[in-house]
Amino acid sequence: MLSEDTLIARYLAPIAGTGGLGLLDDAAVLSPPVGHDLVVTQDALVAGLHFFADDPPASIARKALRVNLSDLAAKGAVPAGFLLAFALPKGIDEAWIAPFAAALGEDAQDFGCQLLGGDTVRASGGLTLSITALGYCPTGRMVRRTTGQPGHVLAVTGTIGDSALGLQLRLTPDAAWARTLSAGSRQFLADRYLHPRPRNALALAIREYVGAAMDVSDGLLGDAVKLAAAAGSIGIAIAPRIDLGAIPLSAAAREALSLEPALIDTIATGGDDYEVLMAVEPDRLAGLTSACGALGCAVTPIGTLCAGQTPAFTALDGSPVRFGKLKFEHEWQR
Amino acid sequence: MLSEDTLIARYLAPIAGTGGLGLLDDAAVLSPPVGHDLVVTQDALVAGLHFFADDPPASIARKALRVNLSDLAAKGAVPAGFLLAFALPKGIDEAWIAPFAAALGEDAQDFGCQLLGGDTVRASGGLTLSITALGYCPTGRMVRRTTGQPGHVLAVTGTIGDSALGLQLRLTPDAAWARTLSAGSRQFLADRYLHPRPRNALALAIREYVGAAMDVSDGLLGDAVKLAAAAGSIGIAIAPRIDLGAIPLSAAAREALSLEPALIDTIATGGDDYEVLMAVEPDRLAGLTSACGALGCAVTPIGTLCAGQTPAFTALDGSPVRFGKLKFEHEWQR
Repeated sequence: MLSEDTLIARYLAPIAGTGGLGLLDDAAVLSPPVGHDLVVTQDALVAGLHFFADDPPASIARKALRVNLSDLAAKGAVPAGFLLAFALPKGIDEAWIAPFAAALGEDAQDFGCQLLGGDTVRASGGLTLSITALGYCPTGRMVRRTTGQPGHVLAVTGTIGDSALGLQLRLTPDAAWARTLSAGSRQFLADRYLHPRPRNALALAIREYVGAAMDVSDGLLGDAVKLAAAAGSIGIAIAPRIDLGAIPLSAAAREALSLEPALIDTIATGGDDYEVLMAVEPDRLAGLTSACGALGCAVTPIGTLCAGQTPAFTALDGSPVRFGKLKFEHEWQR
Repeated sequence: MLSEDTLIARYLAPIAGTGGLGLLDDAAVLSPPVGHDLVVTQDALVAGLHFFADDPPASIARKALRVNLSDLAAKGAVPAGFLLAFALPKGIDEAWIAPFAAALGEDAQDFGCQLLGGDTVRASGGLTLSITALGYCPTGRMVRRTTGQPGHVLAVTGTIGDSALGLQLRLTPDAAWARTLSAGSRQFLADRYLHPRPRNALALAIREYVGAAMDVSDGLLGDAVKLAAAAGSIGIAIAPRIDLGAIPLSAAAREALSLEPALIDTIATGGDDYEVLMAVEPDRLAGLTSACGALGCAVTPIGTLCAGQTPAFTALDGSPVRFGKLKFEHEWQR
C-alpha cells in the first residue's frame, strides 16, 4: 500500500510549482503582483456523480483541474496556482496515481497554473477531489456574474451540449440515436465529456469586452437564468430570452440532434459544457467576437437579457418552449 | 430535502464575507495588501477519521476551520479568508446545517477569516470537508519548515497530548485510567479533542522570533522528525533531540499520566494538538517566551535540533526511549 508520504514525494512533489515549496511545508506561498486582485474558486468532484469511477485517472485529473480553471476564465482571471485535496478509496494504487499525477502536471504546465499544495486523506466512500484554484486580475476588474443589464446580448463561447451528449452515450449506449451515430461523432462527444476545454485563452478578451459572465457548468438554460437572477438581485428583475435555434452546435451534436430531436433538452440543460456565458453590450459584441475569433474560438449570440421575471425560450420556428427542468441536477435533490 | 441553492442562500451566504460576493458568483475576490505574500493551505477532514460522524455539527465546523487556521498560525500569517467544499451524505438536514453554519460564522468572525466560497456536493460515503484557508504575511517573511538549524532550541506552545487523550477516552472509555479520571479532566480532554485552539494570536510573535515552525497535527515526535528532516533536506542531516519529561502537560494530562504511565506514548505521538512546534535560536527564546506569555500562551523548550541522522528521545531519568511509531496514522496505511 502506497503511504501518503511516498505518494507526495514520488508523484506530487515533482509536479509542484515553486510556490508549493516542494510540498514540504504547512502552506504554500505566492507573491501577488501589485495592482492585482486575487480570484479564488473551489470545485469538488465525486466519483459516480461528476465522473465515472473507472474513467482513466489522467482524465479525472484533467477534469478536476479544468472545471476550476473554467471558473477563472469566466472571471477574466489569469491562473496562478491550485491546491488539491483528495480522498482516496482503498483500491487506488501507484498504477492509478502515476498517470493521474502526470496528467495533472501536464495540465498545470499547459495552463500556467502551478500545483501549490493540498491534502491527501482516506475516503470513506468513493474518490472525492476538491481543487482550489487561484488567479489574478487587475484590481477591480474581475468579471462579475451580477453585472448583467437589460439589453445585454447573451453570447456563448464554443459549442454547447457536447459533453452532456457524451455522458448520455455512456448512460444509454443502446438508445437508437446512440447506435446510429457515426463512430467519429461518438468519439468526439465522449472526449468532450471526459476532457473539458476551459476558455482560459479568452480571459483577457472577456475582461475587455464583457459586461457579466459565468461558466456553463450546470446546463445552459439554467445557468442563463442564474446569470439573469444574479444581475437582477441588485436591481430590477431580469430574465433571459434565448433562441434555441441559435445555440451553437458541433457537427457531432447536430448529427445526434438530427437522429433524435428530443436531445435538444440534453443539449440545452445537460451541463458540463465549461464554455463561458456572457452578457455583452450590443456595441461590444463585434469586438468580443473578433478578439475571440483571433484566438480560435467562436462567440455566438443566443439571446438577450430582458427586464422581467419570466425566462423565454423560443424554438427555431419562434414558438415558445417549456422545459421540465433547466439544469442538470446531481443526486443532490433526489 | 434541502436543495443546494437553499443551503447556500439560507445558511452560508449570511455568514460569508464581502470577498465572497454573496456566494452569488463563480469565484471570490480578495485585494492582497501591497508588500505582502499570500499564504495558502488546505486540509481535508473525513467523518470516522478526523472526527466522529455524530460529533456536534458546530464542533465539526470549528475543527474543520481551525485545523487550517493552525497552519496559518505556524507560518506567521494573518488569516484573510477561507473556502469550504463539503460532500454531504443523505442524512444531513437543516437541523444539522443550521448549527454547523452558525458555528462556522462565529469562528470566521472570531479569527478574522471570512468565508469566501466553496462547493457543496453529495457524498458517496461519509461527510467529507475540505477547507482552503488564505492568509497574508509581509513579503518573504512566511515562517518556513525548512529553515531549522543545528543548535536551534525546539519549543512548543501550550500543552501537548490533550486532544489525543480526549480521543482515547472516546475510543476506550472502559480503560482503568479513563474510569478513574476526574470528571473535570475528562471533560477538559474531550473538549480539547473536539475544539482545537489554533495559535493565531501568536502569529506575529512567531514571525518575529522563530527560525522554523510547523503546527503539531500528526504527533509531536513525528512532527519534530519532520521539521528536522525538512531543515536537513536543504543541507546537512538534522535530527531532533527531545526530553520527554519537558513536554508541557495540562493538569488533566498529568492526572491521566499518573494513572497510566504508558499514556506518554499517546501524548507524544497522538497528534491533533494544533500547537506550534518551533525551532528557535537560543538567544531568541527569551524574547519569544515573553512575547507569547504576554498573549497568554506558554512556550516550553523541549529539546534541540542536532546535526545527525538519528532522533533521540530521553525519559525523565535521562535514559533513551524508543517508540514503535512516531505519529498517529489514519486508516491510510492499514
